[in-house]
Amino acid sequence: MTISHIEHLGIAVKNLEESIRYYEDVLGLKCYAVEEVKDQRVKTAFFMVGQTKIELLESTDPEGPVGKFIEKKGEGIHHLAFAVDGVANSLAEVESKGIQLIDKAPRKGAEGLNIAFLHPKSTFGVLTEFCEKP
Amino acid sequence: MTISHIEHLGIAVKNLEESIRYYEDVLGLKCYAVEEVKDQRVKTAFFMVGQTKIELLESTDPEGPVGKFIEKKGEGIHHLAFAVDGVANSLAEVESKGIQLIDKAPRKGAEGLNIAFLHPKSTFGVLTEFCEKP
Repeated sequence: MTISHIEHLGIAVKNLEESIRYYEDVLGLKCYAVEEVKDQRVKTAFFMVGQTKIELLESTDPEGPVGKFIEKKGEGIHHLAFAVDGVANSLAEVESKGIQLIDKAPRKGAEGLNIAFLHPKSTFGVLTEFCEKP
Repeated sequence: MTISHIEHLGIAVKNLEESIRYYEDVLGLKCYAVEEVKDQRVKTAFFMVGQTKIELLESTDPEGPVGKFIEKKGEGIHHLAFAVDGVANSLAEVESKGIQLIDKAPRKGAEGLNIAFLHPKSTFGVLTEFCEKP
């Protein structure tokens, strides 16, 4: 597997509108898309920063993954997503090296990407995602 | 202020050697430098991923900032560092917009960069750093 760059950084927030204002009005970044990802029970807002996206995540369900994260750890950086040359082969490669997978096979994520998550228990605490364009 | 890209991502780890092995042997990234930053009471390891660095941080003191972070939240992503066109003017600009600063003026960070941190209380839970080359 080859990682080309950090595709995005997911940040869990309590209130999407308020945090969009911070990223726009204080940091000067531009929100270019807002999207609901029902599967993950989140509303997302995207900003481009160089070659990496910042993806703000507001939970639409306290029992969803981002809702639970905020309850346990508070707002903050939620996951790190790498752009890889093939999600399926990358999953197979890391699993063969002992990494625990959350997703055994690629599925659809925000922006239509093929994605899969590795379990933070085997990645030194970092919820790690692989992404590729379909 | 203008942010050009994500300069680095700081990740708090308990054991630098073990986590370097994960980033190298599993993810295929290359550690290009290990550096102790006495001021921050950490040993750091750097990996280049596209235009962004991953900076692993092992605390050298349980009472240091990374030691306390791990005690409170466990291993994981610790901070997000933006490359800006001038740390001092960027600090002044965000402070004028109500952001609480940890560093009132730039200081020296790893790799000789001029750096300063914003307080996560006013940045929606993300410990945020500004960086520039000296």
